[in-house]
Amino acid sequence: MIETSRRRDIEDAASSLFRERGYAATSVRDIARALDIQGPSLYAHVASKEDVLWAIVDRVACRFEEAARVSSDVDAAPPDRFAGLVRGHVGVVVSDVGQASVFVHEWRHLSGPRRQAVLLRRDAYEALFRDVIRDGIADGSFVMTDPSLAATFVLTALNGITGWYRPDGHVGPTQLGDVYADLAVRSLTEASR
Amino acid sequence: MIETSRRRDIEDAASSLFRERGYAATSVRDIARALDIQGPSLYAHVASKEDVLWAIVDRVACRFEEAARVSSDVDAAPPDRFAGLVRGHVGVVVSDVGQASVFVHEWRHLSGPRRQAVLLRRDAYEALFRDVIRDGIADGSFVMTDPSLAATFVLTALNGITGWYRPDGHVGPTQLGDVYADLAVRSLTEASR
Repeated sequence: MIETSRRRDIEDAASSLFRERGYAATSVRDIARALDIQGPSLYAHVASKEDVLWAIVDRVACRFEEAARVSSDVDAAPPDRFAGLVRGHVGVVVSDVGQASVFVHEWRHLSGPRRQAVLLRRDAYEALFRDVIRDGIADGSFVMTDPSLAATFVLTALNGITGWYRPDGHVGPTQLGDVYADLAVRSLTEASR
Repeated sequence: MIETSRRRDIEDAASSLFRERGYAATSVRDIARALDIQGPSLYAHVASKEDVLWAIVDRVACRFEEAARVSSDVDAAPPDRFAGLVRGHVGVVVSDVGQASVFVHEWRHLSGPRRQAVLLRRDAYEALFRDVIRDGIADGSFVMTDPSLAATFVLTALNGITGWYRPDGHVGPTQLGDVYADLAVRSLTEASR
């Protein structure tokens, strides 16, 4: 338990620093200093800076995947399924904007198989959005459009939340999820004139 | 002329490094090394690393402002004006994705009056988007929605282009501007059912 909580502290401190300065400009010593411990003590918990980045990225990826599973209802109409995906994604981002920001901006600093694994998971996740768009085009709910470009348009807007959202700001998480789901679904739906 | 071209080289090299590693992890020496010159020679052209960042951010900001001016047609209907703003913004981003990426992600590292100036210019630019949305709501072209959230949704999607666009990719700049303008205008327009 102590080990788990210590690791969580390390990931939180690292998230703040990675987000503020970027992964490349943050050293293990910076992370240790933020936790008021010695660099060598930190190495008792993590093998490397990239290990910490990986832990954060993996955790956020799992949250996105879980949110998509929870929102998934194969019997629902494509616009409702798409709205569910958007609300789920927004929920994950606003639940921890710092970690989500590291996931969005810093995952590129992972190397080798980890980087490859994240690329594959990102693509599988984006495919959920593309597939619902395709289903919506097929059943006439959505306009003919490039499903890949449309999914990218929406997902970059959702990930952009990491750049401006404040938990103490004037927009609540549920309101944001609802407004963004409406904007996203409308962006794919034929206009009334 | 030589001075101007040298400064342009410096800004290009700095853009690549700022984009790749982040501003904080890039030193003046890194920029000099990328240009194969000595650090001290670089200081003959620029006073500081922040000076280079400022030059890039200011240049991109001017391009965005100019694109908005060019697309502006006060007599056009709000959906057409909004589409023009979107196409203009996409055009600036894809014309130099590296510099646009630095503008979007690294401007926060500016300090003092420069940071303040960029904040004011960003807000004035975003206000152009918000105002067209307000006009569209007022004349019934657009649905009732929060103009500020809607403008943020669209602008973050447009700025997200810096994260994935490749000049040699399968989507051309004009096609991207058109598809994104359609998505953005539809996101604000009442659906046909």
